[in-house]
Amino acid sequence: MLLRTGIVGATGYTGSELLRLLARHPQATIHVVTSRSEEGRSVSDLFPNLRGQIELSFSNPDTKALRECDVVFFATPNGTAMQEVAQFLDAGIKVIDLSADFRLKDPVTWSRWYGQDHAAPELLERAVYGLPEINREQIKTADLVANPGCYPTAVTLSLLPVIEQGLVDPDRIIVDAKSGVSGAGRKAAIDMLFSETGESFRAYAASGHRHHPEIIQVLNSVGESPVSMTFVPHLVPMVRGIHVTAYVWLNDKADVQALYESRYQDEPFVDVMPAGSHPETRSVRGSNQCRIALHQPHDNILVILAVIDNLVKGAAGQAIQNMNLISDFSEDSGLDLSPLLP
Amino acid sequence: MLLRTGIVGATGYTGSELLRLLARHPQATIHVVTSRSEEGRSVSDLFPNLRGQIELSFSNPDTKALRECDVVFFATPNGTAMQEVAQFLDAGIKVIDLSADFRLKDPVTWSRWYGQDHAAPELLERAVYGLPEINREQIKTADLVANPGCYPTAVTLSLLPVIEQGLVDPDRIIVDAKSGVSGAGRKAAIDMLFSETGESFRAYAASGHRHHPEIIQVLNSVGESPVSMTFVPHLVPMVRGIHVTAYVWLNDKADVQALYESRYQDEPFVDVMPAGSHPETRSVRGSNQCRIALHQPHDNILVILAVIDNLVKGAAGQAIQNMNLISDFSEDSGLDLSPLLP
Amino acid sequence: MLLRTGIVGATGYTGSELLRLLARHPQATIHVVTSRSEEGRSVSDLFPNLRGQIELSFSNPDTKALRECDVVFFATPNGTAMQEVAQFLDAGIKVIDLSADFRLKDPVTWSRWYGQDHAAPELLERAVYGLPEINREQIKTADLVANPGCYPTAVTLSLLPVIEQGLVDPDRIIVDAKSGVSGAGRKAAIDMLFSETGESFRAYAASGHRHHPEIIQVLNSVGESPVSMTFVPHLVPMVRGIHVTAYVWLNDKADVQALYESRYQDEPFVDVMPAGSHPETRSVRGSNQCRIALHQPHDNILVILAVIDNLVKGAAGQAIQNMNLISDFSEDSGLDLSPLLP
Amino acid sequence: MLLRTGIVGATGYTGSELLRLLARHPQATIHVVTSRSEEGRSVSDLFPNLRGQIELSFSNPDTKALRECDVVFFATPNGTAMQEVAQFLDAGIKVIDLSADFRLKDPVTWSRWYGQDHAAPELLERAVYGLPEINREQIKTADLVANPGCYPTAVTLSLLPVIEQGLVDPDRIIVDAKSGVSGAGRKAAIDMLFSETGESFRAYAASGHRHHPEIIQVLNSVGESPVSMTFVPHLVPMVRGIHVTAYVWLNDKADVQALYESRYQDEPFVDVMPAGSHPETRSVRGSNQCRIALHQPHDNILVILAVIDNLVKGAAGQAIQNMNLISDFSEDSGLDLSPLLP
Repeated sequence: MLLRTGIVGATGYTGSELLRLLARHPQATIHVVTSRSEEGRSVSDLFPNLRGQIELSFSNPDTKALRECDVVFFATPNGTAMQEVAQFLDAGIKVIDLSADFRLKDPVTWSRWYGQDHAAPELLERAVYGLPEINREQIKTADLVANPGCYPTAVTLSLLPVIEQGLVDPDRIIVDAKSGVSGAGRKAAIDMLFSETGESFRAYAASGHRHHPEIIQVLNSVGESPVSMTFVPHLVPMVRGIHVTAYVWLNDKADVQALYESRYQDEPFVDVMPAGSHPETRSVRGSNQCRIALHQPHDNILVILAVIDNLVKGAAGQAIQNMNLISDFSEDSGLDLSPLLP
Repeated sequence: MLLRTGIVGATGYTGSELLRLLARHPQATIHVVTSRSEEGRSVSDLFPNLRGQIELSFSNPDTKALRECDVVFFATPNGTAMQEVAQFLDAGIKVIDLSADFRLKDPVTWSRWYGQDHAAPELLERAVYGLPEINREQIKTADLVANPGCYPTAVTLSLLPVIEQGLVDPDRIIVDAKSGVSGAGRKAAIDMLFSETGESFRAYAASGHRHHPEIIQVLNSVGESPVSMTFVPHLVPMVRGIHVTAYVWLNDKADVQALYESRYQDEPFVDVMPAGSHPETRSVRGSNQCRIALHQPHDNILVILAVIDNLVKGAAGQAIQNMNLISDFSEDSGLDLSPLLP
Repeated sequence: MLLRTGIVGATGYTGSELLRLLARHPQATIHVVTSRSEEGRSVSDLFPNLRGQIELSFSNPDTKALRECDVVFFATPNGTAMQEVAQFLDAGIKVIDLSADFRLKDPVTWSRWYGQDHAAPELLERAVYGLPEINREQIKTADLVANPGCYPTAVTLSLLPVIEQGLVDPDRIIVDAKSGVSGAGRKAAIDMLFSETGESFRAYAASGHRHHPEIIQVLNSVGESPVSMTFVPHLVPMVRGIHVTAYVWLNDKADVQALYESRYQDEPFVDVMPAGSHPETRSVRGSNQCRIALHQPHDNILVILAVIDNLVKGAAGQAIQNMNLISDFSEDSGLDLSPLLP
Repeated sequence: MLLRTGIVGATGYTGSELLRLLARHPQATIHVVTSRSEEGRSVSDLFPNLRGQIELSFSNPDTKALRECDVVFFATPNGTAMQEVAQFLDAGIKVIDLSADFRLKDPVTWSRWYGQDHAAPELLERAVYGLPEINREQIKTADLVANPGCYPTAVTLSLLPVIEQGLVDPDRIIVDAKSGVSGAGRKAAIDMLFSETGESFRAYAASGHRHHPEIIQVLNSVGESPVSMTFVPHLVPMVRGIHVTAYVWLNDKADVQALYESRYQDEPFVDVMPAGSHPETRSVRGSNQCRIALHQPHDNILVILAVIDNLVKGAAGQAIQNMNLISDFSEDSGLDLSPLLP
């Protein structure tokens, strides 16, 4: 019998990507999709790529069909899931939240970065941070998964092996990150118009970005010493893709290439490329892969390059990976996607 | 037992797209891939999106492994397949040629447009033009399939219903076509640099394009009266996608929407959208779909909008569709691809 | 003494382009710039390309500084200028309106396409349609100039010589037009996000576009017989540029290349390229040029290719050209701009 | 009387940009333009944006017209200028070389990075490095100017104030640089096709880039202690623009915003933006400006963001700036260009 899934708020890019992936998942079915603004509209009218693949229309979020699901995904703006999750958990329904509501453990920090009080601080500890490369076992038994942010996924996978081993100076970590525009979501905003972002490149939030505390929390949870990181995101005139360039100083000589290969050898979605490679974002487009390459240009500096598709491994694909884990499916079920190049 | 396939000249975009599709085909395996220039190099080194999916390296084109295949694809530049196909046919191996070598029935016309004598004119009649929407039955029994060009696929599907029914003035057909840059192939050419094609738009070959005689030949084969068509292709600053805007004058009142829906109702890869829709190229990206929409802005003029992914339905996907037909597989085997949007 | 100019509503792309051009105009100065939403903000804060070039801040639209101007430009959304123009005309101030408010002579037609009643129908006849290539003399003595739309400018210049001479079948004119995304303006709209328009191509308004009646009105004003035109606009994933591909049937043999060269030989901003050329939008980027090339692929069909920068010759540049004419300046004053290629 | 200029090898992007700028320079004229491959072809046929602006055709490089010039620009591939410059200097003609031939003082280092012996090591000391913000006085009296590379221009201007003042840890300088594709020049290369670079992002030369030694040489020439810098360039899917993100550790508290403003207050082409700004590459497109903004996200780290147009301040515009200096013209003569946004 197929796993019954529901998606709350599936009119954005993470929602449409969930639809694309679930439509082909061999062990799951889409039972209901909700949207307040698009109630009654057929899903494939809004997302014409899904014509012929999904027959559903958007339901009102109050539909009881959501209560009939085994797993409910929240693909809502920040601040919504925290108000609604409890009722699903109480009903024994597992929840995977793609928003930021349950990513930070500290409600005060959350409140500072997201500009509102947290509505369900009592659930923060219960939520498992859904990065399988760190928390695979906990995810399997979780009923509330906080799906990681796109930048935190790429940055954490970049740094994980050296942080775990305490190989780098924790006070001097530089992360220069670049994202395609879809990272800003599907909402009307002058700043994200084609005419504002095309044929141009810029940094943003250079003095502080919401994903900074999330990354710090994760890195601190795996390393010995607290890290200090400078994180500057940039906007690339492309739709999909995140590229991370991380700079760290090694405390000592180490065969980092071997370390990364060993750390990720059993990971189905992390690919350590040959030393000296330059991963391209398009090499993972549409897929759940993360590709990583290492460079040591001189001295004791290590440059780590990593790419993911922000909407897949950085959002919906990872959510499916988490669904597979909590459902005891094969971890890559429905995720054997060939990246689209060119 | 899996169908054994070989690809001759798989270093271009149609070749790499064949690799992407065949790597996941449930009934076929890639037995050998050849390239003179890249002999010995691993396929996934050239196409990093295929890392973890294809273990093969490029073989020399003289390898006898090609003779061990059930089906051989030619993804070579024009002028190569016509010199090599006969030996495979003689050995009982089926050939699907993605180049233009066997698309035109008249060797004189071929020679005029492709600038060289045809090396195998005796095979031109034997070759079946691989557009399943017209030639499905002949393809099933063919041993040499001439896979259609990208523009001819999109243009023919746009016009087929009205031409078959003789509903339009055959002397006044306007086709304004737009293609992404990957249509020009993966070869060094100043004109196709990002810096030459980015943030710009232009027509090309407005006085005559190689695909013009191919389209005329197909349309004449299905209609009652010979057609005269003006065809102007344009270059769009995007990688993938073809958009055709066709303008025809209807001889008479007719319910063209119903006609198109009826003509294509059993076609797995042609989607007639609701009247008044505007198909986007991204709605078929990475998939074998063709989407069509009709407009009648006034009088007796019919405007037909159609989109395909030039590398899939316009090349490799259609080649797989043809492979499925000649192999008696389900026509959509290995082609259930979700278009990637955004 | 410098001409004093004011700009009402300069927060969009036509407004910012006016600012860019006026900042360097040798005979004009920017006296005041207004915006209700950005009142008090420095112009160069909103448009950082103007840092160091313009010291002004946005004023409230009610400022009396507008009354101190010699020429006032309206760069407002449709429906604003028609309510405010009269007071400026009464005060002896000349007005150049870049919106659509005074382009159509018939208020009923205007109302149908723009969804509201016309607030100043009595001014419609007084307004001169500001296409210098047709109305140069009337513009010189006008006090209210209706600056043409971007598509109408490119389409009219494409067809003008053959329409004036009655050389083509007026019932069979096809115009396939393509525009960069900046044509949609600088306003929050999901449809114009980078993520919605990047790496994709589509038609829009194929069943009817606001610029259609404007083009018809202009062509009818210069030709002998009323024309019937099919006009389909498309959206190109680039910021600037319009490319028109027009298809017409010649009534008779004619040396159209010579006709176009002769018609435009004294025009400072229309460049007839050698027969068989393919103009690129980037060849006019940032400049007031229109480039045109002719093709006759067969029979009696004529294909006309034309490009403009939609924000310059299609908007702000043409407005400056009109300002020069009504001010008795050299027509190209301040408009000697080198197109930016690549 | 106008300064007579000649351009050797003007078929690339730096050459065409020189043509665009010189065509409007009020004090200079283009006397001759050479190209071996395009001899006899009109300049505006190759660069249609220059139609109506430049009447010249390409001459053979052996033309004596070059000897009639006051200033000769070399816009040739690396390795050409060093073989030809001496004859011009001997004839009293000033030379501005836009290639890398005279940028490094040490012929051994040059040879290592450029893969050939240096043909004119005796001229290396005579050449003045043409970054006016450092070497203004020496440039004025130079007869051979080595025009800086695009990355070195942007990186040096980013770091100059803090390096000059010895304010940062010289051993821990990170420069993450991003460039549009035109930086790779106008030459046939598969890697730079639209289809290879569009909708994707990647680093390149992460283990070592030719501009690294050039930057080190410049920084060492202005600072007290030798610097160690990690420099990773990236390729952005856009045509023009460089964005530098530099990370340095301050030795001490310092008002760096005031320092940068003071250091550059008299510089006509360096714009220090308000603290916390995020410069966009499009804000300098087509102009000779460099814009810089500073961030101090925490502790003692300083993040410097800087943008230039790689073809203008990073190449041809800076060459004109140098021409103005050696000709005793106003430094910004012919360079009052409004950046094109959007």
